[in-house]
Amino acid sequence: MRILLSNDDGYFAPGLAVLAETLSTFANITVVAPERDRSGASNSLTLDRPLILRQSHKGFYYVNGTPTDCVHLAVTGMLDELPDMVISGINHGANMGDDTIYSGTVAAATEGFLLGIPSIAVSLVSASKGNYLTAAKVVADLVKRYQKSAFPAPILMNVNVPDIPYESIKGIETTRLGKRHRAEAVVKSENPRGQTVYWIGAAGAAQDAGEGTDFNAINHDRVSLTPLQMDLTQFAQLSATKHWLEA
Amino acid sequence: MRILLSNDDGYFAPGLAVLAETLSTFANITVVAPERDRSGASNSLTLDRPLILRQSHKGFYYVNGTPTDCVHLAVTGMLDELPDMVISGINHGANMGDDTIYSGTVAAATEGFLLGIPSIAVSLVSASKGNYLTAAKVVADLVKRYQKSAFPAPILMNVNVPDIPYESIKGIETTRLGKRHRAEAVVKSENPRGQTVYWIGAAGAAQDAGEGTDFNAINHDRVSLTPLQMDLTQFAQLSATKHWLEA
Amino acid sequence: MRILLSNDDGYFAPGLAVLAETLSTFANITVVAPERDRSGASNSLTLDRPLILRQSHKGFYYVNGTPTDCVHLAVTGMLDELPDMVISGINHGANMGDDTIYSGTVAAATEGFLLGIPSIAVSLVSASKGNYLTAAKVVADLVKRYQKSAFPAPILMNVNVPDIPYESIKGIETTRLGKRHRAEAVVKSENPRGQTVYWIGAAGAAQDAGEGTDFNAINHDRVSLTPLQMDLTQFAQLSATKHWLEA
Amino acid sequence: MRILLSNDDGYFAPGLAVLAETLSTFANITVVAPERDRSGASNSLTLDRPLILRQSHKGFYYVNGTPTDCVHLAVTGMLDELPDMVISGINHGANMGDDTIYSGTVAAATEGFLLGIPSIAVSLVSASKGNYLTAAKVVADLVKRYQKSAFPAPILMNVNVPDIPYESIKGIETTRLGKRHRAEAVVKSENPRGQTVYWIGAAGAAQDAGEGTDFNAINHDRVSLTPLQMDLTQFAQLSATKHWLEA
Repeated sequence: MRILLSNDDGYFAPGLAVLAETLSTFANITVVAPERDRSGASNSLTLDRPLILRQSHKGFYYVNGTPTDCVHLAVTGMLDELPDMVISGINHGANMGDDTIYSGTVAAATEGFLLGIPSIAVSLVSASKGNYLTAAKVVADLVKRYQKSAFPAPILMNVNVPDIPYESIKGIETTRLGKRHRAEAVVKSENPRGQTVYWIGAAGAAQDAGEGTDFNAINHDRVSLTPLQMDLTQFAQLSATKHWLEA
Repeated sequence: MRILLSNDDGYFAPGLAVLAETLSTFANITVVAPERDRSGASNSLTLDRPLILRQSHKGFYYVNGTPTDCVHLAVTGMLDELPDMVISGINHGANMGDDTIYSGTVAAATEGFLLGIPSIAVSLVSASKGNYLTAAKVVADLVKRYQKSAFPAPILMNVNVPDIPYESIKGIETTRLGKRHRAEAVVKSENPRGQTVYWIGAAGAAQDAGEGTDFNAINHDRVSLTPLQMDLTQFAQLSATKHWLEA
Repeated sequence: MRILLSNDDGYFAPGLAVLAETLSTFANITVVAPERDRSGASNSLTLDRPLILRQSHKGFYYVNGTPTDCVHLAVTGMLDELPDMVISGINHGANMGDDTIYSGTVAAATEGFLLGIPSIAVSLVSASKGNYLTAAKVVADLVKRYQKSAFPAPILMNVNVPDIPYESIKGIETTRLGKRHRAEAVVKSENPRGQTVYWIGAAGAAQDAGEGTDFNAINHDRVSLTPLQMDLTQFAQLSATKHWLEA
Repeated sequence: MRILLSNDDGYFAPGLAVLAETLSTFANITVVAPERDRSGASNSLTLDRPLILRQSHKGFYYVNGTPTDCVHLAVTGMLDELPDMVISGINHGANMGDDTIYSGTVAAATEGFLLGIPSIAVSLVSASKGNYLTAAKVVADLVKRYQKSAFPAPILMNVNVPDIPYESIKGIETTRLGKRHRAEAVVKSENPRGQTVYWIGAAGAAQDAGEGTDFNAINHDRVSLTPLQMDLTQFAQLSATKHWLEA
């Protein structure tokens, strides 16, 4: 089985290293990741300059571009054979609820999915205790399950893992994305040259963290697995919109 | 009525200028847009450095950040009063089908929507003939319609306009997003220093452009209006995923 | 007379506009400047991506690159005829003493000089009162003097102008560069994500501001004009170095 | 002896690794280098955003900034004790003649020098055969010589080493910088979106490569050592300039 790995924290990130090591025990791994931290990159594509591919001492490839660029370049131009799966992560920190819109981790997996390949994004919630191995083992479990019983394609899975030992995990729950409160306001500051500058503030706290959401699963020490789709059409509003236009 | 305008082509883009001029005849306009072309920026947020806000000779504000940064900064920190609407565009080129995932134009409107404000993204398909005024008039029509009859909030509308005179437009159609074929492969090239470089290739041609899609509306000289949503959960797959996990 | 103008504050900077307007009364002006503020860019060249040339509503060209890129592109590829002179500025703030090493304003003029064209860098010291017109008139005086009596080529002149009305200027003084004290330490701070970040601190105060220096001229309300050269060889140390190596 | 190492090729560059390993046998090494390739960065300083310091698996520190930023941050804010020497390199490719103006390798050493610390920039000419160890040994020789017999401070040395085995080196020559011919013109190209783009062309060939220059030393398989200075004043022109102004 050939797996393409990427992330948004950069090719040197510890979460990526642990994931690559764990998966390489039973799969053929190629890493193509950004040369620097691109957290918050969302699905951005680099259109105003070409990309350069380099290789690190570990054999990891890295690209002067976004997570989406990495997967796009690997799949459409670099790899001789299509990967059987694209996995992005292990992200340092959660990607739940509205985070998925901004996340470069989810974006790398999304690009695999849009190119027709089953894809998984995996994030370690909080990450302060650094239980990357827990997340790596969870991914290995999912991949092995997929090898035995292929999920009806196409798939795009968003996986969030609590930052606790593997043994303490209380199962995997299929979830919907929760909702966050509005993000914190920008943080106004001044640089040493006396200019006013603004930092993007923290994400909002969970607003809809009820039964069935990713937030709720994590709060109960369970892995959250949310199947995603990329058609942004608001189907439920199509007919109301039509009426509004014609009124 | 207070309208916040942004785009992804940069604060100096002709489409933005035409839109601002058209809307300012009946609304209070504030422009906050990127200082340079950020096409393809998607929903990326700038987290590794603070933003600086400057003002051009026209009174337009510009920010050394992404389209999402612009709207986020304006709404959460800069404007004294919340805008009644966020409008992003007029983009130079279509944002249909899967383009919406990568588009900075759609992202700026999305940020307004996620912050609780009715938002519209507007793009001029092809744009080679430069009928920005057509698109500006279409947006003005929609805004005036909204003033008379508020759409049940919240709304996020993706509007694509054919690049033809206003008089030639054959109506507005409520559509779903079509699908594109897989993107073209990266274009391999060499820079003058002899390094191999890769350009991201063109978007794929329309694959699903059938009845009811945005592609179809445009092909028939109609404005396409697609209501969007930002919950990426694949609800239709929740139960299959659950079964797969438990099998 | 054909003059190529550039700067490091960006093509939209007020100092550049005033300079272009003043010089265009008697010379043929082309502006090619960075698309965004590139203060502190020094002589950096963009080697990892190609440059794009765009034109603003005023007819100014702007480039997604450094000040050096702008002059290099204009002279080696864009202009049909070589300019008779390259002028960079009017910078917002002084470029005296060691500043010249880091300055993008000086770098743009340096690039003209290295390409064989007489070049002037001009900066408005302090700039808080905004007497850009004073600096523009001083440059016009120098250019007219040069038209009547060509300086033995090649030349690279670094001009600093006090931020006072033209009538208050007490002459032009030929100066050597002064020296600054060591720069201030980096300013340690924390971003909203809790990461430690460091801002480059302010330049040091003048250390050698004695008779004959640029600092001294400015302190006496005189324009400072320093002829520069770009051979960094420390000729005075050649023989001592040889002895040291052979000892 | 405490040595601060930096470069402009990025903290992962093979030349830096070889240099660090060679010097660490007899000196206390700290590496602070750019997180990505910043060739051509010259003395640029990052003023519009703060810097972040990270540490790689090897213990090397890396910074999201320029070579100058790295040394500036290390010396003015990060290191508890001042280094006894700053060494920048081993650059992949020559830094001779006018290259020194644009070079990030030279710039990192320059920053050490301007902060009062003896500094060396070292480059491997051509570098296609990868004899980094030759250059590392040459630097080790120079440092050991300096330990025995301190050069009269302050010093800034620009060292270029032929890409041949250490045993084939025919001595070290104290040189002046040569001159290059005008750089090649920009290379006009088109990106896949049909936009005209311009790549900065190659550096010019050697024009003054005569007896006593760095080019000449390299051409004879000798190491070139050029003492540099950073006062750009063209002293030889001061009096002619004065006359010109007063004529």
